[in-house]
Amino acid sequence: MKTVHSPLHAGHAGQLELTAGRLLPGFEVPERAEIIKARIEAVGLGPILAPTAQTLDVATRVHRPDYVDFLARAWDLWIAAGYEGPALPFVWPTRGLRDDLRPDKITALLGYYSFDGGSAFVAGTWGAIESSYAAALTAADLVASGERGAYALCRPPGHHAGVRAAGGYCYLNNAACAATRLRDAGAARVAILDVDFHHGNGTQEIFWTRGDVAVVNLHGDPATEYPYFLGAADERGVGPGEGFNLNLPMAAGADWAIWGEALTTGLSAIRAWGVDALVVSLGVDTWEGDPISHFRLKTSDYPRIGAAIAALGLPTVFVQEGGYAVAAIGDNAVGVLEGFEGR
Amino acid sequence: MKTVHSPLHAGHAGQLELTAGRLLPGFEVPERAEIIKARIEAVGLGPILAPTAQTLDVATRVHRPDYVDFLARAWDLWIAAGYEGPALPFVWPTRGLRDDLRPDKITALLGYYSFDGGSAFVAGTWGAIESSYAAALTAADLVASGERGAYALCRPPGHHAGVRAAGGYCYLNNAACAATRLRDAGAARVAILDVDFHHGNGTQEIFWTRGDVAVVNLHGDPATEYPYFLGAADERGVGPGEGFNLNLPMAAGADWAIWGEALTTGLSAIRAWGVDALVVSLGVDTWEGDPISHFRLKTSDYPRIGAAIAALGLPTVFVQEGGYAVAAIGDNAVGVLEGFEGR
Ligand SMILES: [Zn+2]
Ligand SMILES: [Zn+2]
Repeated sequence: MKTVHSPLHAGHAGQLELTAGRLLPGFEVPERAEIIKARIEAVGLGPILAPTAQTLDVATRVHRPDYVDFLARAWDLWIAAGYEGPALPFVWPTRGLRDDLRPDKITALLGYYSFDGGSAFVAGTWGAIESSYAAALTAADLVASGERGAYALCRPPGHHAGVRAAGGYCYLNNAACAATRLRDAGAARVAILDVDFHHGNGTQEIFWTRGDVAVVNLHGDPATEYPYFLGAADERGVGPGEGFNLNLPMAAGADWAIWGEALTTGLSAIRAWGVDALVVSLGVDTWEGDPISHFRLKTSDYPRIGAAIAALGLPTVFVQEGGYAVAAIGDNAVGVLEGFEGR
Repeated sequence: MKTVHSPLHAGHAGQLELTAGRLLPGFEVPERAEIIKARIEAVGLGPILAPTAQTLDVATRVHRPDYVDFLARAWDLWIAAGYEGPALPFVWPTRGLRDDLRPDKITALLGYYSFDGGSAFVAGTWGAIESSYAAALTAADLVASGERGAYALCRPPGHHAGVRAAGGYCYLNNAACAATRLRDAGAARVAILDVDFHHGNGTQEIFWTRGDVAVVNLHGDPATEYPYFLGAADERGVGPGEGFNLNLPMAAGADWAIWGEALTTGLSAIRAWGVDALVVSLGVDTWEGDPISHFRLKTSDYPRIGAAIAALGLPTVFVQEGGYAVAAIGDNAVGVLEGFEGR
């Protein structure tokens, strides 16, 4: 399987994240991608390609164009306003406040375009976002051109990024962009299978009203797990999207016996939908040793995930999402890809 | 004029606030209230009374009862969960996320019930909130019993607190509670005049659909000033509240020539509404030296505000809101009260 990856991700480094009562160095570090890359090379998964040049056309159809424009300009606005260090918001337009007043100040725009303090900007952030997005589109192009599978080693991840909101380490929704590219290339219907520990709230929001891109999420129950405010089992889509969103939340502590059963349920839904292509939001923070998540998958479980996905027989784009146990992320993420390949 | 004040405010100290990219000691410090109190004593404004005991009945009609319950329990939940230091949120249910999923974890509840990182909880926060609320109700009772004016020296302030959201140093909306108490005591219609530099978004939200409590706000334009996401001139109320909300946003730099004209406009609206009583959300962060605000009122302007309000001839409850130039806050806040008394 070919991997698509850009070294530009490394410029997104040194960002802080707001946690409960603290501002701390983020868990989403450059080493994550480097360790996955090293593992790909170690097992000889296949060539690692640079992404091809991409316009922002897909991004501005998946997200609001003004949001994409903001992402590109946020760091420059922050510096121009005289701030230094990672750019973070401090106030958000929740209910009771309007969501249609777009302020003029960078400090307020950071909140207007986010839902938490987990997606800071540093000097290299936009370069990393663009390269991550381009990797996802390039992998989609490989699959659209006949490859059975391709892997976008994306960093930053994307599945928390919504129509106009960054959050949870995410900025552009790479998986949503890959699915859109597959649709553009002729797939009548596409499914996104999100196996990251956290609910892919952004992906769900983006395709909530659409029947042509169906979404399955396996994740920690939002009653106790980030992002808390989306991901319940009763969320099934609306309008043409009704019945094309499937949430399979699980309580903390889920191991393969529980998680694997949810995977079977999710794959059955994808079969029933009769899609032409698949995008996998590949988070491996389901691993038992993950520092911020609460499932109990073992490293030996990840090839099983890949094999079960392969059994769908669909052209498949893997897009890297979370996974914060840095030393294990290579074994786990590449384990899925090897399982898919039947190695 | 009688002042109502409780020493319990002092337990709300040492809290941090999230600003753009930093967690810093809050501007809303106990010294603010102490300096106002000292000035009241220095000029002999009148007796300083302790608040009378109050139930949470008014609070749970102004706010959602589950929110009030949360405020009372937040610190204990934080400590029980093993955290230490000021309790702050980190993720908020903005658009794209649901506002009806109430999580089980304190870290998520802090975001569910707030719109920024400016209303931290420490051990003494709830005691201060309760005492501030009781001061506002007690001052309302004094006015309902025949006093021409009374002053609730509240800390923490309240006007940013909405139906179910803390933010901007505010928790319970003391002014909204005072207005409600005046209504309960027989006033058919009440007006709230908010002269704080910042838009009183919580007060507006609480009375948005009501015609019996009319709201005037004089404040920095939300395009460039906190809270950014409410306070535009086109917000006039809906349903029975239509026409009973008047926003008078001003650009940064407004001095008495500009601000005083807006005050005249606001007072004219209050006269036209024909109300029976008035609550003044008395922020003095309009002062030229305020560290976080951008108007240019001078200390000599504050008695003029009080005199203009007195000319309405309405029973008036003053409720302390913002003002962060600590050394000047006593002269400015008490200046308004002295102007009201014609001293
Ligand atoms: Zn995750
Ligand atoms: Zn203020």
